[in-house]
Amino acid sequence: MKVNNINYRTIIGSESKNSIQIIDQTELPHKFVLKEIKTLDEVIHSIQKMWVRGAPLIGVTAAYGFAIALKENQCDEFITKVKEKLISARPTAVNLAWAIEAIAGHVKRVAPTKRYGEAWSYAEKLAEEDIQTNQKIGLHGLDLLKSFKKDKLNILTHCNAGWLATVDYGTALSPIYHAAEFEMDIHVWVSETRPRNQGSSLTAWELEQAGIKHTVITDNAAGYLMQKGEVDCVIVGADRISVDGQVVNKIGTYLKAVVAYENNIPFYVAAPKSTIDAKFICDNHPFEIEYRCGSEVSLITGKLADGSVSTVTLTTSPVLNPAFDLTPSKYISNIICEDGIFNPSSLKDLL
Amino acid sequence: MKVNNINYRTIIGSESKNSIQIIDQTELPHKFVLKEIKTLDEVIHSIQKMWVRGAPLIGVTAAYGFAIALKENQCDEFITKVKEKLISARPTAVNLAWAIEAIAGHVKRVAPTKRYGEAWSYAEKLAEEDIQTNQKIGLHGLDLLKSFKKDKLNILTHCNAGWLATVDYGTALSPIYHAAEFEMDIHVWVSETRPRNQGSSLTAWELEQAGIKHTVITDNAAGYLMQKGEVDCVIVGADRISVDGQVVNKIGTYLKAVVAYENNIPFYVAAPKSTIDAKFICDNHPFEIEYRCGSEVSLITGKLADGSVSTVTLTTSPVLNPAFDLTPSKYISNIICEDGIFNPSSLKDLL
Repeated sequence: MKVNNINYRTIIGSESKNSIQIIDQTELPHKFVLKEIKTLDEVIHSIQKMWVRGAPLIGVTAAYGFAIALKENQCDEFITKVKEKLISARPTAVNLAWAIEAIAGHVKRVAPTKRYGEAWSYAEKLAEEDIQTNQKIGLHGLDLLKSFKKDKLNILTHCNAGWLATVDYGTALSPIYHAAEFEMDIHVWVSETRPRNQGSSLTAWELEQAGIKHTVITDNAAGYLMQKGEVDCVIVGADRISVDGQVVNKIGTYLKAVVAYENNIPFYVAAPKSTIDAKFICDNHPFEIEYRCGSEVSLITGKLADGSVSTVTLTTSPVLNPAFDLTPSKYISNIICEDGIFNPSSLKDLL
Repeated sequence: MKVNNINYRTIIGSESKNSIQIIDQTELPHKFVLKEIKTLDEVIHSIQKMWVRGAPLIGVTAAYGFAIALKENQCDEFITKVKEKLISARPTAVNLAWAIEAIAGHVKRVAPTKRYGEAWSYAEKLAEEDIQTNQKIGLHGLDLLKSFKKDKLNILTHCNAGWLATVDYGTALSPIYHAAEFEMDIHVWVSETRPRNQGSSLTAWELEQAGIKHTVITDNAAGYLMQKGEVDCVIVGADRISVDGQVVNKIGTYLKAVVAYENNIPFYVAAPKSTIDAKFICDNHPFEIEYRCGSEVSLITGKLADGSVSTVTLTTSPVLNPAFDLTPSKYISNIICEDGIFNPSSLKDLL
């Protein structure tokens, strides 16, 4: 994707430097800052502080982090330690654990002396595959959007599941980028997505860079617009999907899905197959909903009149800050993945 | 209610000074600022800029504004002009029009020379009645809360329908204040209420002053907590209620009501009878949903590290900012008013 007309990816690895270059997403939309990350601890810090975020991107970032760590030591015990450290960086998105299990499983199959090089190749492969996967999601999603047969389509999205949440293209925004390329007349309702405002700070910024019509709304306004017929469909990403089609995604997804259902508005979830957790089915939830620091709600960062970026305190009251919620499959029309468009009840066939 | 242990009301009239004293609610929670308002234009400004807000309070404020204006002129034509100016200050809450119609109707029945004094008496009467009404709402609501027969009750509220939204006691918070006096163990989930954050800025501040346990959450987190069984009931206020029990209230109310319904959680609306609009029934909506300036979403005010209060820009993207939404009666368990607890389908009996 382009930033000020220059092509970028969210992450670029360099085996020769044993480092990665990332976009510090906490600085957006006020500043576009690239950072070089050189150690395992820095990788973990960048994931926990959400310099990089989005389920697919944290998976790929963690894989690169694994490769960076292997420069120092390639023995099995060390690999196990690195795996554990990376997997515990953030608990909810399954893609992180998936990517780490995949890369660790791969390198363990080769001799220790070859492991460092193999880890870098595998991380690069995961990054490339992420791009291809998202392009396929975009094309399948485009078919869905075309099927509305409307002159103008109003699509609502929540949080950021755009190219910033992946290596490139995005998941939920990939069908939108493909629809724009296909010259469909689309307009995107961008829900602000409190507390971290990834909607207004990241999704709106992405869509502006791509020249796609969009309007920021508060999370509270989504129901009103659905009720008024101003939303043709909703597309969101996912951090973890159960085998029976329950979707864990950014807090607030559940409210929007229930109200979309009440108003007969299709609710789509776009995510790679790696988001499906084979162990997660029915009422068995072998994962943790992450509770993040209350300061994400009580403090907020923006631009002062003089152009400097500053943080202000909104409230000193006690705060609870669950970062994700779970949407039962009943409220989800379809799941769009690289293999096609699926009913949430038929995901078993994908595994 | 008390602020730092000193008794206050949100509005105090002074006929001798021909002015009112109000709390500038846009300064909360960072500063507690009293302002003297001396002219009709200042009253309208204070309503439009939301120095005073909350359906019952803007009704009483407008009545005082009417009295202030009558010092200058008491003829019928002038009264009509003042009425129109005040009613158009904000379009959605019906209490404003209700209070103005009541006070204007009253003064027109007396001779012009007596109208100024009568207007002041009537405005004072409306203020006193508001307090009594809210006390009754509190007692009826307390009965509802007692009926849960639970050791500890988790109540969710949206926006601010506390004493700051009325002359005293509040509507949605009045049952909570009465429950606290009754020594029930209660805890309040305060939804932040974007864009103006009246939940975290006003409701949390009120509850802190009253020593009632509370936790601020993002609007997005309300569904998650309901699904997890962490919410026993929801109580909100209202800006306008249809004869058939549809409720117009702060944007985001509808999302919460639908999801409460899905989770079998009682959803109560607490409001004085003056909130019921006799002309508003079924699909006939003879009123406007106010769209406020997008800067309410894109700018936010808070405290900088040095203790000064400042406004930061969150986004420069296009914004749509509807201020209210409509919740169909299907999702509302009961309406609590000064006359008791009603099913939304039986409001006709109250008119």
